[in-house]
Amino acid sequence: MHINSLLKIELPIIQAPMAGVQDQRLAVAVASAGGLGSIPCAMLSHAQIIEQIEEFKAQSDGSYNLNFFCHQPPAHNPGAVQRWQQRLAPFYRELNIVPSNSAGPSRNPIDQQTIDLLAPFKPPVISFHFGLPSAAIMQQIKAWGTVVLSSATSVAEAIWLEQHGVDIIIAQGAEAGGHRAMFLETDLSAQQGTFSLLPNIINAVAVPVVAAGGIADASGVRAAMSLGASAVQIGTSYLLCDEATTSPLHRRALTSESGKETCITNVFSGRPARGIVNRAITELGPVSDIAPQFPLASAAFTALRSSAEKQQISDFSHFWCGQNNSGCQAISATKMTLQLSAGLTGIPTNAN
Amino acid sequence: MHINSLLKIELPIIQAPMAGVQDQRLAVAVASAGGLGSIPCAMLSHAQIIEQIEEFKAQSDGSYNLNFFCHQPPAHNPGAVQRWQQRLAPFYRELNIVPSNSAGPSRNPIDQQTIDLLAPFKPPVISFHFGLPSAAIMQQIKAWGTVVLSSATSVAEAIWLEQHGVDIIIAQGAEAGGHRAMFLETDLSAQQGTFSLLPNIINAVAVPVVAAGGIADASGVRAAMSLGASAVQIGTSYLLCDEATTSPLHRRALTSESGKETCITNVFSGRPARGIVNRAITELGPVSDIAPQFPLASAAFTALRSSAEKQQISDFSHFWCGQNNSGCQAISATKMTLQLSAGLTGIPTNAN
Repeated sequence: MHINSLLKIELPIIQAPMAGVQDQRLAVAVASAGGLGSIPCAMLSHAQIIEQIEEFKAQSDGSYNLNFFCHQPPAHNPGAVQRWQQRLAPFYRELNIVPSNSAGPSRNPIDQQTIDLLAPFKPPVISFHFGLPSAAIMQQIKAWGTVVLSSATSVAEAIWLEQHGVDIIIAQGAEAGGHRAMFLETDLSAQQGTFSLLPNIINAVAVPVVAAGGIADASGVRAAMSLGASAVQIGTSYLLCDEATTSPLHRRALTSESGKETCITNVFSGRPARGIVNRAITELGPVSDIAPQFPLASAAFTALRSSAEKQQISDFSHFWCGQNNSGCQAISATKMTLQLSAGLTGIPTNAN
Repeated sequence: MHINSLLKIELPIIQAPMAGVQDQRLAVAVASAGGLGSIPCAMLSHAQIIEQIEEFKAQSDGSYNLNFFCHQPPAHNPGAVQRWQQRLAPFYRELNIVPSNSAGPSRNPIDQQTIDLLAPFKPPVISFHFGLPSAAIMQQIKAWGTVVLSSATSVAEAIWLEQHGVDIIIAQGAEAGGHRAMFLETDLSAQQGTFSLLPNIINAVAVPVVAAGGIADASGVRAAMSLGASAVQIGTSYLLCDEATTSPLHRRALTSESGKETCITNVFSGRPARGIVNRAITELGPVSDIAPQFPLASAAFTALRSSAEKQQISDFSHFWCGQNNSGCQAISATKMTLQLSAGLTGIPTNAN
């Protein structure tokens, strides 16, 4: 089946779910152009998830993608959190703030309770990050007719995902912004760029493969499709869109010279993620051995970031961004999606 | 001027110069298909350079590219070399060998003597790695009518190269095998994949840009051209070709499962280069703080590698390779070039 029929969309363009910088409004705008809008759910309460789905459905009869995380929640580890707060202590002193004592994870993995909540909606598409949920949950979701996606950062991860029942694999090249999907891989130095990862995964699996990482405009879409992608997933180019909730400081970083320099860091959450290089990354990482396990590292930044941002200081903010932010435009996400779709034409049928 | 006229070729496909695994025979085979064959000169004596050029010209009236390095040769540093030999001492003991005392660089940067040697040939194309030679040398080369290329790993390096007179810039994405061209950049974590680096450099300079890194087959060529490249430079896919001098152990590594895992390491030469992960990389690096400055790190491996390879052991060999080796085939480089050229057709004229 063609990927458009599978995802119930007109354009094989997936707006990447981006927790913290968007809600259902971005998804609605992408859906009105015929693409697949995504709603990031990992940081939402149950009530918020329902609200987001209902608001989407009130405005669009298009398909939509709900995104969830599948990490193993870490054990409570006050020692590690305290060491991390001590490492950040000079910053607390500088900004004259008291660190938050909440060590609770700010991102929750999907669980049975959430699944029960989703059951009445039978969402058309669900995508996972950091692997997949339990076989029982997978079975339940697939029984709804839901199409399941997850991201791979290596051929081994792609094969694992296929063996565990995903319908579509997203090949997340090293250029991509936000969290690396790595769930079997641990070695950042072995992460492949899109030009390499995408064809290698396509060669290794039978399910359709979506290209992600470094695709910024119509010519990027055309290049990814020429490499054999069945669809593209694009995040960074949507960050300046009218319907995104990207903060003014984040928007400013994206349009400044410094926004062109990104790296993969674990300091903000405990897991590797690509963002714009700033003081926290430079002084604590980019990769810190003492950052507590995901997502425990993030709580130590909450008060710090909030206090700094009030003073227009971006030193402690995680501004996720891919390596290629040349496609960012302050336009509607509908228009962005239509512009990107120009790259879907003129691809030779023998592209592979 | 179209890049084919500039380089005096029929196909905008450049065979990447690969010191240690090829000589003029590979260049001749690529030239007979209409591509640009390259002769790596950085590890050759003056007599060998002349010999290579003359042998090429005896077999082909096509254009050719001579490649030279432009690194600052390091000061003699017996202390650093001794520390490195001490670090490698367990391996020397294991293989029962005496380390070489030669600390002489195995790769020389281009100098006036070499230029004087080349003058009678007025080579059609010269490419540099690690920046550019002096302004005086640049002036002399360009007065011959020679077209000058050099590689950039960032937008800043591309702008510098353009300002210093290159005719064509190679955008070397992080996927590429062999030495990173980095000459202004020092931070490996900021190196961009081809999907990002290529369009960013194209947007920043007026000279034609060649795509390198992760391009393995016709669909890779089509993708790079769709992203706006004026030509492609391909190395890894030629490594198994009949005319390459790739060693049997290197060929075996390329076709094995382990050959699919590469990383960027400085342990073999002192500068970051992408190769197939092996024991030396795992146990010493991938990036070692005590590896002596390029190329001083390499001498410590010479006896070790030679002794190990005689026993069919690849533990200490630098098997340069890009992230995408899916295009390697044991065929003639002429046929490889023609296969790659299938990716030059069907690119919409509005690709950019």
